[in-house]
Amino acid sequence: MSDVKKVVLAYSGGLDTSVIVKWLQETYNCEVVTFTADIGQGEEVEPARAKAQALGVKEIYIEDLREEFVRDYVFPMFRANTIYEGEYLLGTSIARPLIAKRLIEIANETGADAISHGATGKGNDQVRFELGGYALKPGVKVIAPWREWDLTSREKLMAYCEEHSIPVDFSNKKKKSPYSMDANLLHISYEGGILEDPWAEAEEDMWRWSVSPEAAPEQPTYVELTFEKGDIVAIDGETMKPHEVLEKLNKLGGDNGIGRLDIVENRYVGMKSRGCYETPGGTIMLRAHRAIESLTLDREEAHLKDQLMPKYAEVIYNGYWWSPERRMLQAAIDETQKSVSGVVRMKLYKGNATVVGRKSEQSLFDESIATFEDDAGAYNQKDAEGFIKLNALRLRIAAGKGRQQS
Amino acid sequence: MSDVKKVVLAYSGGLDTSVIVKWLQETYNCEVVTFTADIGQGEEVEPARAKAQALGVKEIYIEDLREEFVRDYVFPMFRANTIYEGEYLLGTSIARPLIAKRLIEIANETGADAISHGATGKGNDQVRFELGGYALKPGVKVIAPWREWDLTSREKLMAYCEEHSIPVDFSNKKKKSPYSMDANLLHISYEGGILEDPWAEAEEDMWRWSVSPEAAPEQPTYVELTFEKGDIVAIDGETMKPHEVLEKLNKLGGDNGIGRLDIVENRYVGMKSRGCYETPGGTIMLRAHRAIESLTLDREEAHLKDQLMPKYAEVIYNGYWWSPERRMLQAAIDETQKSVSGVVRMKLYKGNATVVGRKSEQSLFDESIATFEDDAGAYNQKDAEGFIKLNALRLRIAAGKGRQQS
Amino acid sequence: MSDVKKVVLAYSGGLDTSVIVKWLQETYNCEVVTFTADIGQGEEVEPARAKAQALGVKEIYIEDLREEFVRDYVFPMFRANTIYEGEYLLGTSIARPLIAKRLIEIANETGADAISHGATGKGNDQVRFELGGYALKPGVKVIAPWREWDLTSREKLMAYCEEHSIPVDFSNKKKKSPYSMDANLLHISYEGGILEDPWAEAEEDMWRWSVSPEAAPEQPTYVELTFEKGDIVAIDGETMKPHEVLEKLNKLGGDNGIGRLDIVENRYVGMKSRGCYETPGGTIMLRAHRAIESLTLDREEAHLKDQLMPKYAEVIYNGYWWSPERRMLQAAIDETQKSVSGVVRMKLYKGNATVVGRKSEQSLFDESIATFEDDAGAYNQKDAEGFIKLNALRLRIAAGKGRQQS
Amino acid sequence: MSDVKKVVLAYSGGLDTSVIVKWLQETYNCEVVTFTADIGQGEEVEPARAKAQALGVKEIYIEDLREEFVRDYVFPMFRANTIYEGEYLLGTSIARPLIAKRLIEIANETGADAISHGATGKGNDQVRFELGGYALKPGVKVIAPWREWDLTSREKLMAYCEEHSIPVDFSNKKKKSPYSMDANLLHISYEGGILEDPWAEAEEDMWRWSVSPEAAPEQPTYVELTFEKGDIVAIDGETMKPHEVLEKLNKLGGDNGIGRLDIVENRYVGMKSRGCYETPGGTIMLRAHRAIESLTLDREEAHLKDQLMPKYAEVIYNGYWWSPERRMLQAAIDETQKSVSGVVRMKLYKGNATVVGRKSEQSLFDESIATFEDDAGAYNQKDAEGFIKLNALRLRIAAGKGRQQS
Repeated sequence: MSDVKKVVLAYSGGLDTSVIVKWLQETYNCEVVTFTADIGQGEEVEPARAKAQALGVKEIYIEDLREEFVRDYVFPMFRANTIYEGEYLLGTSIARPLIAKRLIEIANETGADAISHGATGKGNDQVRFELGGYALKPGVKVIAPWREWDLTSREKLMAYCEEHSIPVDFSNKKKKSPYSMDANLLHISYEGGILEDPWAEAEEDMWRWSVSPEAAPEQPTYVELTFEKGDIVAIDGETMKPHEVLEKLNKLGGDNGIGRLDIVENRYVGMKSRGCYETPGGTIMLRAHRAIESLTLDREEAHLKDQLMPKYAEVIYNGYWWSPERRMLQAAIDETQKSVSGVVRMKLYKGNATVVGRKSEQSLFDESIATFEDDAGAYNQKDAEGFIKLNALRLRIAAGKGRQQS
Repeated sequence: MSDVKKVVLAYSGGLDTSVIVKWLQETYNCEVVTFTADIGQGEEVEPARAKAQALGVKEIYIEDLREEFVRDYVFPMFRANTIYEGEYLLGTSIARPLIAKRLIEIANETGADAISHGATGKGNDQVRFELGGYALKPGVKVIAPWREWDLTSREKLMAYCEEHSIPVDFSNKKKKSPYSMDANLLHISYEGGILEDPWAEAEEDMWRWSVSPEAAPEQPTYVELTFEKGDIVAIDGETMKPHEVLEKLNKLGGDNGIGRLDIVENRYVGMKSRGCYETPGGTIMLRAHRAIESLTLDREEAHLKDQLMPKYAEVIYNGYWWSPERRMLQAAIDETQKSVSGVVRMKLYKGNATVVGRKSEQSLFDESIATFEDDAGAYNQKDAEGFIKLNALRLRIAAGKGRQQS
Repeated sequence: MSDVKKVVLAYSGGLDTSVIVKWLQETYNCEVVTFTADIGQGEEVEPARAKAQALGVKEIYIEDLREEFVRDYVFPMFRANTIYEGEYLLGTSIARPLIAKRLIEIANETGADAISHGATGKGNDQVRFELGGYALKPGVKVIAPWREWDLTSREKLMAYCEEHSIPVDFSNKKKKSPYSMDANLLHISYEGGILEDPWAEAEEDMWRWSVSPEAAPEQPTYVELTFEKGDIVAIDGETMKPHEVLEKLNKLGGDNGIGRLDIVENRYVGMKSRGCYETPGGTIMLRAHRAIESLTLDREEAHLKDQLMPKYAEVIYNGYWWSPERRMLQAAIDETQKSVSGVVRMKLYKGNATVVGRKSEQSLFDESIATFEDDAGAYNQKDAEGFIKLNALRLRIAAGKGRQQS
Repeated sequence: MSDVKKVVLAYSGGLDTSVIVKWLQETYNCEVVTFTADIGQGEEVEPARAKAQALGVKEIYIEDLREEFVRDYVFPMFRANTIYEGEYLLGTSIARPLIAKRLIEIANETGADAISHGATGKGNDQVRFELGGYALKPGVKVIAPWREWDLTSREKLMAYCEEHSIPVDFSNKKKKSPYSMDANLLHISYEGGILEDPWAEAEEDMWRWSVSPEAAPEQPTYVELTFEKGDIVAIDGETMKPHEVLEKLNKLGGDNGIGRLDIVENRYVGMKSRGCYETPGGTIMLRAHRAIESLTLDREEAHLKDQLMPKYAEVIYNGYWWSPERRMLQAAIDETQKSVSGVVRMKLYKGNATVVGRKSEQSLFDESIATFEDDAGAYNQKDAEGFIKLNALRLRIAAGKGRQQS
């Protein structure tokens, strides 16, 4: 373990990663560089500086990555209407590639030969951090303390703190919750505690970002979202940066009880786990994106997107953002978004995010053809006969030859 | 046109299909057999008998197909979590194969050489009826009056009625609505009228099966759904037949403002159209089915199902229920449902159908492994290192050889 | 039929399309523009000029499109290793989009309002010509004489010629063959005649581009093909233009008895048909392209390409080159080809095109890791245990809970 | 290491696995059960008995699994036209699930708590053995000596033999080859040696099962293969058991220089490797199966099979035969094979396996419709116009609205 000289740690400023700083210094006898990012988790990141300094860290990186996070990760993912296993909007998954990229970039800047993180050996996040790290810097050494050390219980961790004079008020307040939580601009997640029983209903006071539908206003909120090439660029006519869009939608969604989710999901490491998620803005965004696509995408490209989406979601969930297959899928997805521009009008009310209107200069909706009224010859109904007859030909031949039909 | 001897007509008892009876008799100088089915559209079918008799029809089929419809069509489709274009639950599409099958069976019983229906030349339903007809009886003659006659306006239709003494009170009351509507146990649909402008919000008084979320009760309703092999067999512990399940869920959903949908969809005949749908029971069922699968399906079969689903939905939407590709996909889907049994607990509240618990004797959720607490060695965290390293190997090799990484 | 003013005809100079010139002039009383292209069919195109003039055509387009054909259509298609139904290299399909595009461009240049072609109403080519035409000029009028006229037998056609003084030596010599044939730089096809019996073996004298394996030289020919970004740019070190590459490979393949194919295929219009094809150069190219990809593509992008390929082949076979779904798939495919560069060495011998070596500066083959000898720690075999254990976890949990395993 | 009581070893009788017997006895102080199977590798299995006895083994299983191997593994796989990465017929992959199953069954019979195999830590076979083992007996202990011991060079192995009095003539003669080889009824494979350079051509004397095309007879061999439900049941009219079919085809193929393959493939563990394979019978079988399907499968099920095949191949290659996803895919594939019956006539000549005829009572080829001659109205060419127009509608609308077309 003597061969690590300097390690860059994804540092939250909380108790666990503070222990890791000390443990890395001791165990590897190496220098630790901390990296703390604001990706919209809703807590100050600046306090991490003093904590890191108190632990003897000399190179401290504290960064606001909110805009980059939404622009280069969240938005591209939403262009595919990405959902994992029919339900999950990938709020945790999509934040990891950016963290991994910055860890490696900082390692390159500071001459570090290793990176480290505070994810456990049971979850998906270790995979996402490490696959990203290896893909971007193949010779990097990865240190995953939770897979190595013996501080496997809260008691041992506390004893370690006492022994090493790590102030326990480093403890992130969130961690006092009975749940394991993770947050960024796209979502907040809850695992553990009573949730480990899939039959148990989540308690109301667990949720932090949204009111319950019951507690939401009696009056609906209407909002108009303007898309350009698949991304939202304005809300109610006001142009915004990507992260401002998501912040605004989180506020609107949270206020109206939108975006709560309670699921059992399949982790990449092979087990099922139960998680609850709040994704207020993302839930609105997904609905709206489908609506603008319904007007502006060709049928066949839309269907092909739907067929590719589960694979794309799996690639991201499993941690392969930095991979050739993700780039390949992204190329296909982005090719379709050139014309995905226009406005979607939504009604937000007590948990419901409902599309009530959509319009676009790129619209492929042709009222003159679709109409139930006289279409003045825009569509020749007689064409349908040949269309059906030739589409039926293979079935008719098979039936005529006595092949099973039902 | 003299070569048709007898034609079986899908007869609703409404004005349009009554006109068709007369028009077929006149135009083809042939006998007409009427077939009227109760598939849960919410209207009496027995009155169709007198109307058909008044039109001189001698062979009149009136049938209650509700159980068969849900058991053999709706339930198999829901096993795949089927959604067309991310939103539509295929309520109209799934009813057509059964109608087509009965038309052909009745043609065989009555010695008819043709079938007929009242669908227009612009829509999907003509395709679904006729593909089914051709697949099941390849030599059948199909007569689609709306593609042939010149009664292309309401005025001409009325003139025809007057001329042929067809009482206009045959007119289905629904048809007085400004919308083109279709209903069965799974859903009711609305098209036309102001909906032809995709920007226009649907009017509240259009909806017939559900109260608005605003008007729904202030108290949530909890319900427990029991699945066996992918199908719901009991509600709150009470065993029910398939159509009783759907009727009950429609009531529960409709009362709680659940299942309204407003979309622009791509028709098989090549145009976009705007439709509104109410699918109260189906919306609950889909959510619940995914929840029981989340506990009982293996990850890889679940993901494969998700990848196949858009194709399966397309096959049904386009009218290919009676096709080898549908049977092939169904075989794969049904293979996965053997263990999809258990109970899902849902909360229904003002438009929201939320899963709050799921349990199953077939559960693959392993609490001893998933736990955040000490797992007593059920899972060896050190395994994750090798797992990640080998999964990263191809990426590391590529990066080591200078290949693009981001 | 009086509303067509000018029509651009895909004119081969043969008897059938010469009859069409006259028939169009007579039937539509319109001006005819002829378009004849050299796409490598192996016949002079210049003689078409005099023939067209003799028929009174004033605007005559004769063009050499060989380079464009291979560069913009054949090569992009081969980047996907495209095969239809496991066997067919799409030689006819890939030539149609270019013809359709030029027909429309010439229509725009000459102010024509219609296009016409000599394909029958039973085949795929009518679909490909017309889908292309409609996609590129939505208001164009398409005239398909074989679907309209009554010259449905050879006798009627001959009578028409006599009546209209069309010299029968316009008859293309190929057409004296008992087969319906089509040729371009990628392939020559044969249909009809004794081939209509799928059990009958094709006669040796049918084949025109290749010797039989029996008649091929006793000595193998070795050839080295240099790829850049997925396309062949040099043969045995000599840089060539795309069409020169294909011409050279056709010669090499044909001389060595390579590229004959005898299949039953499924047409888009719904029937099965039997066809024989000679694709000497394409057969070599496909094998070589897979070989260079085997060295330079990442595993996951290679697998994803393989999964998308059948759809891409279907899109091209069915005539949707000019479609959003083709562009979307092409974007994904082309994204993967950036590093597909290097050299493949092949042995050509009596029908066999065998890869015997491949090398690339972009190679992802890592001899130090792959070796059966001591790898000096490049690969840690112990990693495999964790890799396997976590990949097995879902299976172990299922088996532990008594789930069916075999 | 004391907790293993009895281990079942996949024992070839060769030097390596003989060393493993001794090493297991010593290292784990446990009883070893040997299992040796004839799966058509072309060597006597009975001699393994004496060798095992000499090593002190008391429970010795020697079995002829050839019929089961072909019937339950090879044939089902060929129903899908399975090819990995466009070239590889999965000869090694498909034998592993059967070995794994028997290892586990024997473990259950003998009360063993562990299984062991002689595969290295770099390859796919360890994964296939172990995934199978874990899936069928989740609590089984797996011992992979090559990942554990330090006998990592030939010298150390020989020293171990000398030290433990293992006669070196246990050495399998094949192993004196410079290649790492594996054989069963489906194929023989070669890796290592000069093949580790992908540019180096394989030497002629490496190949063992086939003559070179050059050395094959000057006269072609014709053969007729009879299929029932997707499997070959007779050759030239003679009914045979599955393994007899494959033995006969191997002979025919090998004699005619058919089935050699030289590729670079992507292993599941993340590296590329170069392998040469001889699959004489399989190569003929694949071609023939596609031919009989071309006549008897519906177009859409055939295309869907082609789209699913790469995934199915990946599942088998990666070792997931005993998995829910394989069963799911198999259900879909088998559903399509009910009508895949008939006869294929093939010509075998100097490396070429060419289909020259196919016939079937289940044929969907309709000569009366496909004919170039007068079809007496079986097909109405005018239907094609409507077919094309509606298929073009979405493209026309898009073009009419100025959307990009090329």
